[in-house]
Amino acid sequence: MARGRFITLEGSEGSGKTTHLRLLADALRARGIDVLTTREPGGTKLGESIRGLLQFDAAGESPMPRAELLLFLASRAQLVDRVIRPALEAGQWVLSDRFCDSTFAYQGFGRGMDVDALRAINRFATGGLMPDRTILLDIPAAVSHARVIGRKGPVDRFEAEQEAFHIRLAEGFRRLAAADPDRIRTVDSSQTQDETAAAVLGALSDYFE
Amino acid sequence: MARGRFITLEGSEGSGKTTHLRLLADALRARGIDVLTTREPGGTKLGESIRGLLQFDAAGESPMPRAELLLFLASRAQLVDRVIRPALEAGQWVLSDRFCDSTFAYQGFGRGMDVDALRAINRFATGGLMPDRTILLDIPAAVSHARVIGRKGPVDRFEAEQEAFHIRLAEGFRRLAAADPDRIRTVDSSQTQDETAAAVLGALSDYFE
Repeated sequence: MARGRFITLEGSEGSGKTTHLRLLADALRARGIDVLTTREPGGTKLGESIRGLLQFDAAGESPMPRAELLLFLASRAQLVDRVIRPALEAGQWVLSDRFCDSTFAYQGFGRGMDVDALRAINRFATGGLMPDRTILLDIPAAVSHARVIGRKGPVDRFEAEQEAFHIRLAEGFRRLAAADPDRIRTVDSSQTQDETAAAVLGALSDYFE
Repeated sequence: MARGRFITLEGSEGSGKTTHLRLLADALRARGIDVLTTREPGGTKLGESIRGLLQFDAAGESPMPRAELLLFLASRAQLVDRVIRPALEAGQWVLSDRFCDSTFAYQGFGRGMDVDALRAINRFATGGLMPDRTILLDIPAAVSHARVIGRKGPVDRFEAEQEAFHIRLAEGFRRLAAADPDRIRTVDSSQTQDETAAAVLGALSDYFE
């Protein structure tokens, strides 16, 4: 059985990742592909517990920057070993809402950690697994900010960061994409939902030839 | 103000670390030293939440080996940044029940991970902070096993490991001590409590000259 494809969606808060992950999963299933969707942080019982510690200070105390990074990576290690690798080996395609590029963008460009050090520690956490293809949903910072503000429900620690953080983040994602154009394909997410969904699927077109 | 000393106690389960940490803190305080005691994993609100995930599968799912390691390091990073460094800089002596050598022994010798890789990732988590002095409480595996069995209360995931794991662990601690005799001082913890306590204090005698 052929190994499945590992596809990740990346982008700022409010860039439409969750919606386009679902639409992409539907489109792939319509082509007869066995798809598993997941998200980071989370995707496992342990990872969802970690997600609570990361996003809403469930411990009653905010993680310091290095502790924050290591919690993200713990969630990732668990997700890779328990979910992603077994699914890929069973021939499923795995779609993940966020993966390693969020680490490079948030902790690297957002928090100012050394991106090469982040790559090394990420490689340890994943055992070297990288996405086959990454879709970066790109959107002007002002638009994503307006979408997040318009959401119902509690605002998490990352959504609450100042605008300068989100601008560094968006710029970081763009630089990551520019450095690895074969893996990371940028899709303009300020188009209509249908246009964006078509562009997301188009970024995988070589897989269907 | 002089920077405080950072002293860690290491050893197998049942080696007497908790008791001798308390006795050592008392002895140092009797000499007029301002002492802060802590433990790993834990020592902060976030770290105690992580401790629950690590020891008793609070998430309902055991961490895989790399996730386990990263959770320990997240707890350590938080402890270093929020508690240990500020205390040392304020002139306090910090005594910790476990620190980096437990990582090298448990994940390295116990779980078979590469010890050099563990040293590198630990260095990242701690920002390079190492103990000034480490007391290894050494005890025959059979004695520590009997002490753990005799305890009341739930047995955690590490205590429940097979005997071969605990033998590898004890051997690992001994090898770490042999490789770094200036920092790591071994104390025979199968002596009486008073004898052991005197030997622990004796391992710090150069600090009082």
